[in-house]
Amino acid sequence: MSTSLIRLTRGVPPAESFPVERLKVCAEAVLDNDAARVLQYGKSRGYPPLREIVARETGADPDRIIVGQGSLQLQDLVARMLVRPGDVVYVEEPTYDRTLTLLRRAGARVIGFPLAADGPDVEAMEDRLKQGERPVLFYVIPDFQNPSGTVMAREKRRRIAHLAQRYGFWIMEDVPYRKLRYRGEDLPTLWSLAPERVIQLSSYSKLISPGLRVGYAIAPEVLAENLAKMAEDTYINASYFNQAIVAEFIQRGWLEEQLARLKDLYRPRLDATMEALEAHMRGIATWNRVDGGFFLGITLNHGVRADDLLEAAREANLVLTDGRGFFASGGGDGFVRLPFCSLTPEEIREGVARLASVVRALRG
Amino acid sequence: MSTSLIRLTRGVPPAESFPVERLKVCAEAVLDNDAARVLQYGKSRGYPPLREIVARETGADPDRIIVGQGSLQLQDLVARMLVRPGDVVYVEEPTYDRTLTLLRRAGARVIGFPLAADGPDVEAMEDRLKQGERPVLFYVIPDFQNPSGTVMAREKRRRIAHLAQRYGFWIMEDVPYRKLRYRGEDLPTLWSLAPERVIQLSSYSKLISPGLRVGYAIAPEVLAENLAKMAEDTYINASYFNQAIVAEFIQRGWLEEQLARLKDLYRPRLDATMEALEAHMRGIATWNRVDGGFFLGITLNHGVRADDLLEAAREANLVLTDGRGFFASGGGDGFVRLPFCSLTPEEIREGVARLASVVRALRG
Repeated sequence: MSTSLIRLTRGVPPAESFPVERLKVCAEAVLDNDAARVLQYGKSRGYPPLREIVARETGADPDRIIVGQGSLQLQDLVARMLVRPGDVVYVEEPTYDRTLTLLRRAGARVIGFPLAADGPDVEAMEDRLKQGERPVLFYVIPDFQNPSGTVMAREKRRRIAHLAQRYGFWIMEDVPYRKLRYRGEDLPTLWSLAPERVIQLSSYSKLISPGLRVGYAIAPEVLAENLAKMAEDTYINASYFNQAIVAEFIQRGWLEEQLARLKDLYRPRLDATMEALEAHMRGIATWNRVDGGFFLGITLNHGVRADDLLEAAREANLVLTDGRGFFASGGGDGFVRLPFCSLTPEEIREGVARLASVVRALRG
Repeated sequence: MSTSLIRLTRGVPPAESFPVERLKVCAEAVLDNDAARVLQYGKSRGYPPLREIVARETGADPDRIIVGQGSLQLQDLVARMLVRPGDVVYVEEPTYDRTLTLLRRAGARVIGFPLAADGPDVEAMEDRLKQGERPVLFYVIPDFQNPSGTVMAREKRRRIAHLAQRYGFWIMEDVPYRKLRYRGEDLPTLWSLAPERVIQLSSYSKLISPGLRVGYAIAPEVLAENLAKMAEDTYINASYFNQAIVAEFIQRGWLEEQLARLKDLYRPRLDATMEALEAHMRGIATWNRVDGGFFLGITLNHGVRADDLLEAAREANLVLTDGRGFFASGGGDGFVRLPFCSLTPEEIREGVARLASVVRALRG
């Protein structure tokens, strides 16, 4: 067995995915064509041409689109705007660990709903709502969820949109992976089902480059002005230079080509992950079929302590993310997030084989 | 009298100050030389070469330097880290309006100390401290203060540093204009006098371009780790691409040339402002001599309501910033901030003449 270190922690795009030469062309073009605007301060809603592009693509009013420094920053602003200490916030369980951190920092009492292959447990959610609990927000990643990789089924999307309308909570819908579908067909976004209740967040970090730090929110009309004010009061505006580079990249038709390239790069990595799991992990872990995104989450079938697992993995030169960070209500010891985009198929095969050995050894 | 609109509201660098061609060269160079790093996620402390540059210049430990999306964002993180609802925060009065907003959002009870030609009223501050008041933070802009343009005298710097050490409060020292000195000699920063009590903030917005959104904090050792964690939990990291462009610009020796260019551009604008004030405003307003920065603040000698002043100015095609926004404790009706960098000497002369007419007319 190879002893080179394999990091199953890197939920980032690989360097070979960055369209470096094209970004050079775009940077030069925006400085040639719009320097006085992109090098200046601007309104907090963001660079107007990029907002127009998002508006045309989504059908949203450009005034409701706020472009910021990546989508996490916008999530933080949403949390600061909507969540008061003690407020209840619903999340999927597991969910994105950084969002849990910022929700808790805003004072949220976070309640997780277990994630099945087709999305979170809507029955349990409806029960709590019927019993009178009034969450302010439900944070959800319906497409290729982080960390599980699952896609929320159409019917659950409809039910959750309906519950938000009926019980008056906001949905924070995070869709950074939505365009990275390697198989199958898109389902409607929650935003398309209940635009007056949904703040949709997305970003170009996974599609072009994280280093540009360009993400956006589409907010309901009643929230957009406050969100823009919250952004202005925090950082005046995010970089128009970077936003203009993204706009230029899209206007040249390069995003479609980039997406095709990314899918060709990532699909074999996902396939290698699924095949390696079949080959090595059958009977010792369970997982769901994944059709897109960056992650596939597996759950070990037998009890294990996360500290033991991380330690044993490290001894096998395998770095894992602590699964517990994704669970709002505790647990997650036996949960492993496999990020497949930044590893080659060979590294994935070796990493999964090594993980299987570690798990078998822990079972004794 | 010309009737073209003159905006005395624009506290921003003029477009002609942006080193567009050189920024193109820098953007291309960083993508040629360091694409895999600058287009990727990174640590929240920021792009290491830029932190090294700041460290060499200031003598600070690079681990205590945190580069972010402009310095306002870092101020917001500092406020969130240090200020709990009800905590007392001291400021100069008048002071930067955006900082007042974010301090209040953090729950601060803000207390302003009147600004004289040589800085804030340290006697009054010491009195309150002796009476037992315990501020968590003192926010101060010692060099070419926004909005007044004043410079804090050497002795006041020493006394304030000493008070911070004695009474255990933090100083948030904001120095974005420090390098834009058109006359005279630098005085020591508060950070150099009490590095263990001072968080110094600065930015390249006024020196290169606001659109890059690159600012930095130098934090005391006991705060740096928490501040970096606060940044990571809010936005992962600010754009390394933009930070690398700034680093490249500095490494090529272009910042010195840019500063010389800016001083040549802004000095005549400041001179025009001082001359126009002498010519038109003697007897109806008071002001201090200004030697650098972006602003000169004047106080009208006779009572006026801010709403009347703003309205009368608008009728004369003159847009003023509401002076009340700079005053933490109320007042500011007769305060006018003159931002001279983004106006030509002709516009300044015309603007000040028009302002004088408006004020004389209001006095009736």
